[in-house]
Amino acid sequence: MEIYFNKITIIGLGLIGGSIALSLKEKNKNIQITGIGRNEANLKKAKDKNIIDQYYLNPGDGVGDSDLIILATPVKTICSMISDIAPFVKKGAVITDVGSSKSSIINYVDKIKDKNFIFVGSHPMAGSEKKGVDNAAPNLFLNSICFVTKNKQTDPYFLNKIKELWIILGAAIIEISPEDHDNIVALTSHLPHILAVALVNMVYDQNKNNQQIKLGISSGFKDTTRIASGDPDMWKDICISNKTFILKKINDLRLELFKMETLIQMEDEEGLYKKFYNAKHCRDNL
Amino acid sequence: MEIYFNKITIIGLGLIGGSIALSLKEKNKNIQITGIGRNEANLKKAKDKNIIDQYYLNPGDGVGDSDLIILATPVKTICSMISDIAPFVKKGAVITDVGSSKSSIINYVDKIKDKNFIFVGSHPMAGSEKKGVDNAAPNLFLNSICFVTKNKQTDPYFLNKIKELWIILGAAIIEISPEDHDNIVALTSHLPHILAVALVNMVYDQNKNNQQIKLGISSGFKDTTRIASGDPDMWKDICISNKTFILKKINDLRLELFKMETLIQMEDEEGLYKKFYNAKHCRDNL
Repeated sequence: MEIYFNKITIIGLGLIGGSIALSLKEKNKNIQITGIGRNEANLKKAKDKNIIDQYYLNPGDGVGDSDLIILATPVKTICSMISDIAPFVKKGAVITDVGSSKSSIINYVDKIKDKNFIFVGSHPMAGSEKKGVDNAAPNLFLNSICFVTKNKQTDPYFLNKIKELWIILGAAIIEISPEDHDNIVALTSHLPHILAVALVNMVYDQNKNNQQIKLGISSGFKDTTRIASGDPDMWKDICISNKTFILKKINDLRLELFKMETLIQMEDEEGLYKKFYNAKHCRDNL
Repeated sequence: MEIYFNKITIIGLGLIGGSIALSLKEKNKNIQITGIGRNEANLKKAKDKNIIDQYYLNPGDGVGDSDLIILATPVKTICSMISDIAPFVKKGAVITDVGSSKSSIINYVDKIKDKNFIFVGSHPMAGSEKKGVDNAAPNLFLNSICFVTKNKQTDPYFLNKIKELWIILGAAIIEISPEDHDNIVALTSHLPHILAVALVNMVYDQNKNNQQIKLGISSGFKDTTRIASGDPDMWKDICISNKTFILKKINDLRLELFKMETLIQMEDEEGLYKKFYNAKHCRDNL
């Protein structure tokens, strides 16, 4: 399988955008990669390292010649970025993104009339607590999962080309509707993050009155809350962009917790055993 | 520092009891260790490996000669075990336990009148998903934390001797009241466990209707829910033995989640940023 696109523009050269550029160059150094960002020093660094071939500060300047434009900017900027570059892209250009919620973006794109570009949504489930192009890694997507969204409006030919691109970068693909995607990540990624944050903030608040709490932190607590070290800016954006599904999952959790609470209150040994047994069985098989 | 006790009985020769015996023997092979358990094959195995010197199936038979009796049976059996062995221990014998909740045990012991033994509560924060004497390790307590409880009734001399014992086994000591202990572990251990279990059970339930959910499981989710693989029997007992504090922490979490939910509902960027920033700051410093 070869990379279908010859000229690629990546908007946002942070950890994800930088790692895409680096991986693409490693697969085929003849691919022309244009980088776009707000920080010129960062772009210059990427060019000096040959991660990109050229760069622009203004998105409109760097997309006109590209077969593929990858939006790797924060999730809340993606819709406005699409509108900003739309007048400048060539007819038939493909745009994809890497945003962690999809319905709001796809709904936005589907409503644009007479567009001359093709949009396919992506969400590579890769990352690190480290940020920025300095931490870009050519194997960031190796053995990762990448969601690629499909609905009635999705062009099947370019859907496949985007899937191929992520496969070449090492990812396994989940083809999914934007709504199913947002439902799944709300449950498996966003809710766990919010719970980890809530736990850590509780420890912080309650520690003010009891200095010994911090001493009682076990390796289990550290594992459970590791993700709370994620980028605050990114997570506030995710919460807002996937608001509907996240609020639904918080409500589902509230019901599940209420069941646990009732079993504890009633000292229902059999019911509690079933909950713990079922969770162990399920977790052991993940 | 030398081990103060010459003759030690360990009741319950699982992972914790077995590891204590193994560590003690490694520190001083002249210490006489009696093992007590319900499974004779298990006790025989421990004796064959020289982890213990002798064994009994009946607790009353194996405690009369001992300076120290360590109760390493499930937390719900500890109070009744104390009553069972009390008539057989020698005057001035010290008893400690390894139960993960402390108030109910200490309250029980403090109410026993005219007792001829001294009780000091312990809770070594060590363990593994692996169970049984076969997985016993001499370094299980190395660099771990061990809570040792103190209240007005605690004998200060033997409190120190029990602290020394855990220090010799490699643990750092937190001296604490039974209530503060139960409050802390409810927050830092029991609540995270219940949340991990609730999350996994939600994924299990919702996966029935959406087979793709399991594919979306990230390394973050796996970290967050690792502890849900814990022993169901042990965890049902913990929930009941530390019921009061656990229910309080579930309620605290409900309030914290409600705050997050409101911020998301209102799309309060500044408020959400503060929550995520604070959690990151706190987690990074754990």
